[in-house]
Amino acid sequence: MKVIPLGTSSGKPTLHRNVSALAVVREGEWLLFDCGEATQTQVMRAGLSPNRLAAIFITHFHGDHFNGLPGFLSTMGLDRRERPLTLTGPRGIRQYLDVLARLKILYLNYPLDVHEFAPSDFRESDSKSILVYETPAYEVIAAPLDHRIFAIGYRVEERPRPGKFDIERARQLGIPAGPLYGRLQSGHAIQLEDGRLITPSEVVGPPRPGKAVAYCTDTRPCDTAVTLGHKVDLLIHEATYTEDLITEAEDFGHSTAAQAARIAERADARRLLITHFSTRYPDASPLLEEARAVFADTVMARDLAEFEV
Amino acid sequence: MKVIPLGTSSGKPTLHRNVSALAVVREGEWLLFDCGEATQTQVMRAGLSPNRLAAIFITHFHGDHFNGLPGFLSTMGLDRRERPLTLTGPRGIRQYLDVLARLKILYLNYPLDVHEFAPSDFRESDSKSILVYETPAYEVIAAPLDHRIFAIGYRVEERPRPGKFDIERARQLGIPAGPLYGRLQSGHAIQLEDGRLITPSEVVGPPRPGKAVAYCTDTRPCDTAVTLGHKVDLLIHEATYTEDLITEAEDFGHSTAAQAARIAERADARRLLITHFSTRYPDASPLLEEARAVFADTVMARDLAEFEV
Repeated sequence: MKVIPLGTSSGKPTLHRNVSALAVVREGEWLLFDCGEATQTQVMRAGLSPNRLAAIFITHFHGDHFNGLPGFLSTMGLDRRERPLTLTGPRGIRQYLDVLARLKILYLNYPLDVHEFAPSDFRESDSKSILVYETPAYEVIAAPLDHRIFAIGYRVEERPRPGKFDIERARQLGIPAGPLYGRLQSGHAIQLEDGRLITPSEVVGPPRPGKAVAYCTDTRPCDTAVTLGHKVDLLIHEATYTEDLITEAEDFGHSTAAQAARIAERADARRLLITHFSTRYPDASPLLEEARAVFADTVMARDLAEFEV
Repeated sequence: MKVIPLGTSSGKPTLHRNVSALAVVREGEWLLFDCGEATQTQVMRAGLSPNRLAAIFITHFHGDHFNGLPGFLSTMGLDRRERPLTLTGPRGIRQYLDVLARLKILYLNYPLDVHEFAPSDFRESDSKSILVYETPAYEVIAAPLDHRIFAIGYRVEERPRPGKFDIERARQLGIPAGPLYGRLQSGHAIQLEDGRLITPSEVVGPPRPGKAVAYCTDTRPCDTAVTLGHKVDLLIHEATYTEDLITEAEDFGHSTAAQAARIAERADARRLLITHFSTRYPDASPLLEEARAVFADTVMARDLAEFEV
């Protein structure tokens, strides 16, 4: 997996940072988290193909995470997208899209599969989290964060991949190359012509765990972020302010860089990617330093930079 | 006056042209026509102060003319704008803003004075046009264009300025410098101490006509554009296609460059500024050539270029 922040500014764009959006890129397709104004232009700049976009996940309705949605959806319509698109976010999206379609602001001619969630949906779930999207290769779960308004955090988790196939060992056992390899790799025992039974564990290693990333913005430091970020390879967490503005952070429902780092520590994340910087930091390195003092494996988001997971 | 195109692409942005928006700048303040996605970023790039923005005029609800509105309005809120802002456009804006405010997408904390117009408002007007905004220095009138959906064209017209005051002549007549100059300049006769009566026409030249610009997009060639553009110093008219795509132009409610030029000719405009180019023309010079063959005084819009009026 690869993570590409498309916008890293909080509240409004600057000449160097666009507003919130982030791409999680996997083999052959990608997912978009948030869609601030001008995200479609950032997608062009990043060289991402809109046709390979599988799903959009919105965290909350503040405009800096959301205002790029109608333009991006319409542009994919103009470009004759045919592939269905999944759109997940807080309840209200459908009403919003309906008004826009009625006014002709929105141009949609491909299937849009909208899933909206209200706070009560999470309260009624045993784990307080909801599986919102899945494919044979990975799943996305959602859980509520702690912001001024209802906001949703997400975790993308690849399913464990089959273990490594040991060709050398297979040859030693006299298994003929071909379809029998595939049977074993996919977990089935086989019988050879000489009658011997070979079980998968004889030639296939243990399943390899999938990678995981979590996306937590906008939020005060909260237990949900720890849960979503549990042992992830990359925790993407907002860090709007430095610690001297902790009162502003609390009042506006945001986190300081140190608070983001403490969440990464509690979550036992492998790496922390901080983003969503207040425009008062044209140079965001004080935020990076503050986070690194708490959690050394912290990196700082820049628009269009690529982070391998 | 000065005209600054902020976006010149039709339908969707490219890496070199943003979607529709255009600033008309006068002494100390400016007006915004259309507000496509990322207009607020173009405003920053152009070095225009949002605090000096007096009014926004929307032509129609297609997203490429409109989707930048909530972000720009919210950013002015975040930046603690206090000055009231006028917003004029097709009926439906209020409903749109209401939904956005309810969902917390919009952040407004300054007075927004919304004026919406339906087709019937124009039909009921004797002149088929409506005065939608005025100040002591200029006025803006609106009239319906001919697009796929209801679209409004605008004309900004400065009021005639008082004639030039002839200081040399005033001295010859023995008028003492000071407040009497102002009385004459503002059109009042004065009496000197020696009893002579001086009328304004003795020292003040004829009133100087104000400048005028018209903004006509999106539209098929239509009589309204001729009326709005009558003898303007600058007619801003869409030219989405070259003449070989005249059928597309008709079907989608647009104009070719030659059609725009013929409108400029019929309107007896001083100069034509073409804009709103289909993304099929990465180099828009064929559009310019086509228009110039009909109307020589044509210039081509580029994002952030400045055109003196």
